[in-house]
Amino acid sequence: MKETTLTVEGMTCNHCKAAVEGALNELNGVESATVSLQEHRVDVIHQDSVSLEAMVEAVEEQGYDVKA
Amino acid sequence: MKETTLTVEGMTCNHCKAAVEGALNELNGVESATVSLQEHRVDVIHQDSVSLEAMVEAVEEQGYDVKA
Repeated sequence: MKETTLTVEGMTCNHCKAAVEGALNELNGVESATVSLQEHRVDVIHQDSVSLEAMVEAVEEQGYDVKA
Repeated sequence: MKETTLTVEGMTCNHCKAAVEGALNELNGVESATVSLQEHRVDVIHQDSVSLEAMVEAVEEQGYDVKA
């Protein structure tokens, strides 16, 4: 298991939190995803098989920007 | 048909817009509901039978405050 933290801009409310967490949780191999709205971040716990690219894409598909 | 404008605090994003519009549109007699995020308002077009109380309640149930 690995932990990856993404910095995500534009999440403003609990709907945003749910959308981002939900999209990440749908990825095969993601154990949990937890958004902090205040800190503009998402902590993802996942298997090694989950790529950073896949996580970034899942968040971007919800309409949010992932910062490098 | 009547038009009622509600001032609503706390709507920050398109999810909020959709939640508030959807809740109002579910009320019997509501023709349309349009949120302006920038102006913190909702314009509701509805039949005379729809009470202000019912509209306020629908918005509050989504977690937003309606200002008098």
